[in-house]
Amino acid sequence: MNRTQELMEAVRSSVCKDVDTVMIWNYESSSTANTFYLSGFRGSCSILIIHDKSNYIITDSRYFEQAEQETDFILVRHTTGRLANTVVNFLKELSAQVVGFEAERLDFKTYDELSKMLNVRFVPIDQTLYKMRSTKSEEEIDKIRKASRIAEQAFMETLSCVKDGVSEIEICAELEYRIKKLGAQVGFETLIGSGASTSKPHVKPTEKKIQNGELILFDFGARIDGYCCDITRMALLGKPTEEIIECYDLVRESLEKATNEGAAGVIARHVDQVARQVILQSKYAEYCFKYGLGHGIGLEVHESPRMGPIFDEPLPSGAVITVEPGIYIPGKFGIRIENDVIVRDRCFEKITALTEELIAL
Amino acid sequence: MNRTQELMEAVRSSVCKDVDTVMIWNYESSSTANTFYLSGFRGSCSILIIHDKSNYIITDSRYFEQAEQETDFILVRHTTGRLANTVVNFLKELSAQVVGFEAERLDFKTYDELSKMLNVRFVPIDQTLYKMRSTKSEEEIDKIRKASRIAEQAFMETLSCVKDGVSEIEICAELEYRIKKLGAQVGFETLIGSGASTSKPHVKPTEKKIQNGELILFDFGARIDGYCCDITRMALLGKPTEEIIECYDLVRESLEKATNEGAAGVIARHVDQVARQVILQSKYAEYCFKYGLGHGIGLEVHESPRMGPIFDEPLPSGAVITVEPGIYIPGKFGIRIENDVIVRDRCFEKITALTEELIAL
Repeated sequence: MNRTQELMEAVRSSVCKDVDTVMIWNYESSSTANTFYLSGFRGSCSILIIHDKSNYIITDSRYFEQAEQETDFILVRHTTGRLANTVVNFLKELSAQVVGFEAERLDFKTYDELSKMLNVRFVPIDQTLYKMRSTKSEEEIDKIRKASRIAEQAFMETLSCVKDGVSEIEICAELEYRIKKLGAQVGFETLIGSGASTSKPHVKPTEKKIQNGELILFDFGARIDGYCCDITRMALLGKPTEEIIECYDLVRESLEKATNEGAAGVIARHVDQVARQVILQSKYAEYCFKYGLGHGIGLEVHESPRMGPIFDEPLPSGAVITVEPGIYIPGKFGIRIENDVIVRDRCFEKITALTEELIAL
Repeated sequence: MNRTQELMEAVRSSVCKDVDTVMIWNYESSSTANTFYLSGFRGSCSILIIHDKSNYIITDSRYFEQAEQETDFILVRHTTGRLANTVVNFLKELSAQVVGFEAERLDFKTYDELSKMLNVRFVPIDQTLYKMRSTKSEEEIDKIRKASRIAEQAFMETLSCVKDGVSEIEICAELEYRIKKLGAQVGFETLIGSGASTSKPHVKPTEKKIQNGELILFDFGARIDGYCCDITRMALLGKPTEEIIECYDLVRESLEKATNEGAAGVIARHVDQVARQVILQSKYAEYCFKYGLGHGIGLEVHESPRMGPIFDEPLPSGAVITVEPGIYIPGKFGIRIENDVIVRDRCFEKITALTEELIAL
């Protein structure tokens, strides 16, 4: 069974049995992951129309040739006027009555316009798609693994460029260059911070130059055939202070305990608690990470399932998730270690193969 | 007057006089450009609340420290539970009654949730923001100009790597590396195609190796302090065919005529027609570009104003737009030349300074 059939069946059995059509609206890359997952199309603008009889892709002239090459969905050419009108007319021709759509992706204005022009019922199907995508096939997992190997190699090679006086931006350029030269794409906007700025969990690289004695945070990933990995490692130029060693050891212990605790069927929140407790019981409790412990990765860098204090669902077998505890002391430094793991029936299987030790430069 | 005050006044005078609050919802980077434009914050998750008394930014723990550094908006910490609840409670505290929002950016699900939890009237204000952003200050234009100089230098340096047997992806890696080493960010996903794939206007680089006699399309940009340029140039490895020369000359003539025709106050559609006619009157009429001739650039690579057959508005003074005619012969080759220009009172002033000739390698 292909993915569109699987989607239709899942939507009808778990959301609404009357759904006759699913629409995936992708404008200026608003839903590229689901578009690629269902159709194989990689462009920035398309509307997928999934229907019992056939699957269609509506796009504009920039993508006519590309759509014919990348997907077996039937091409519907949008040539003049407003895109919404082309879609409305096409849905009328199909006699669509109950249309599944992405309520978390479709903008309100388009929804409002379509609702007024069409006499159909719209039904949100986001969760069904998230759930399908959260359980990876071994083929999908292999792509994430391949992306990891490239990201790791690029990272290790980049370390030789990290010296006193080199800027964060330059290091970022070196790392991303190597990822691409090794045949992958950059998975997401690379985060690099040094010194005090590492205390910002989502720190972006700046012109600031690395100095001796500073911690350096690298949060990076590569992407192969759409699938990305997501890794964080810390390096230190010079000698670590006692405080850095203490915090690093705590974060590493937190990572290890969480990794040993996880498996399919374990409640997401529980793994988060196990990781968090290690830090909350230390003298660094107030600096414990406040975000969720981890998130699914795949076609998007943040996807289902999530591991955090508000997630009560059991982890599904075959999911690929990050485990990323941290300690962040504002104005001083931050430490995060982040691995990607596969949720297996009896354990978390690590994808990330890099050393988990603090990297001395 | 700062931008938030200007926005409030414009919304009240042109959209709805009763608006007391504007909300900019940015989730997983859904509205980073407007967020940065109004507040200076660069993170991937925030809700701006703009109000007569004060401006607020609601964000999560990943961004508490960063928000305090990047913006003078008052930080409201989202710490537990759902983000929507934090926003709803805050809007209730403010006694918001009529809330301006981005109908083209806010997803339907969030809109629907907020509507049910709040007793307020939501008013779309997208056009007001597009209009504000479409007219650039000289300071903003300087950033685009600086981004252009870097993109151009990186491009010229990259040409020395373009040889028989080098892959499109490798060339892309070289170009993006140079952009970053020169101190900029990559403006958008670089497009590189070679040979027959150049006929796809939005072609992405692949493992395919460049061969002698092939056209190579480069569509690339750099970004400085948020502002990007957008340039397309064609190179040819070896000797061009007669057909390539003919098409190239037509595209160049189209570009030149359009550039000479444009100025503030000229109807966008008219400039598009002038460019299009050059190709439509030739024997390559059926291969004439079918997209609009150009689009605004700035904090986003596609923004207002647009130049195409359906745009009847006069071009505003101070806008920065692309001019990018092309000829695309499926299965054979495509040619596009793309410049960035400033809409001045009496002319289009070119930002792009690269040669407009076909680059022989």
